[in-house]
Amino acid sequence: MSEPPLHPDVEPLAFLLGTWRGEGAGHYPTVADFTYTEEITFGHVGKPMLTYRQQTRDAVTGEPRHAEVGYWRVTGPGVLEVVLAHPTGVTEVSEGTFDGGAIEVATTQLAATSTAKEVTELRRHIQVDGDTLRYDLEMAAVGQPLTHHLEATLHRIS
Amino acid sequence: MSEPPLHPDVEPLAFLLGTWRGEGAGHYPTVADFTYTEEITFGHVGKPMLTYRQQTRDAVTGEPRHAEVGYWRVTGPGVLEVVLAHPTGVTEVSEGTFDGGAIEVATTQLAATSTAKEVTELRRHIQVDGDTLRYDLEMAAVGQPLTHHLEATLHRIS
Repeated sequence: MSEPPLHPDVEPLAFLLGTWRGEGAGHYPTVADFTYTEEITFGHVGKPMLTYRQQTRDAVTGEPRHAEVGYWRVTGPGVLEVVLAHPTGVTEVSEGTFDGGAIEVATTQLAATSTAKEVTELRRHIQVDGDTLRYDLEMAAVGQPLTHHLEATLHRIS
Repeated sequence: MSEPPLHPDVEPLAFLLGTWRGEGAGHYPTVADFTYTEEITFGHVGKPMLTYRQQTRDAVTGEPRHAEVGYWRVTGPGVLEVVLAHPTGVTEVSEGTFDGGAIEVATTQLAATSTAKEVTELRRHIQVDGDTLRYDLEMAAVGQPLTHHLEATLHRIS
């Protein structure tokens, strides 16, 4: 099936489209520091949202670690919403703003299955400059306050 | 990258793995009846969850309609959890049971962005017999009580 045209609602986020690969580092009070590789793909099907999937792998062993899938929507000038599922049994609803290549979103709702670890807040700071995407993620979880957790730099490969 | 072995936690759901295609019909008090084609893919990366993505298309025009992405986890004998993101700005946490090829899950938590339409309950009934997957979905949304909304039959194509 040929690719449909990008829906005009998400044209302001067109700078995200494509597949990105890079490396990141994580730390948190409850775990040992770690490094990872990451691949992120933003796509679309012609509807008013971007599709999003992400997979990280252990930088040493290559084994899959975290992943996320979901959708990004623009709901007004410089305003966006993100809905994600995490394989840990958590769903994330985040809302925020974008200005040029700078995106700031924070969770407005987090839901979880009965067996999932408690996550209470996520804040994502993303900066895209051409084919380079950098992000920082802050997390409040398992009783810890909002704490810087992840930073990564990725490059667009397609 | 070669495919890793299936994680033993999700072996009881191995009957879902693969790509399924078929047709469905929808009705709801607030919309005209409609028919659709659907593709569902269950996969895995060797971790204790199945990956899931779904896309429906208008049966007449082929244009994309609904979609869902997320993860399915087994948390005990015959017990499973599902976390999904919907492109409408909704996230779904569902829990339930499976017995042979019969799966019954109902939402325990639904969350939404500030602009999303209200969905208050979803119940999914899935029956897999070999390479045939049938499902019914009941939905309470936009002020309507729990009502039968979708039914579809799909066949495993890979």
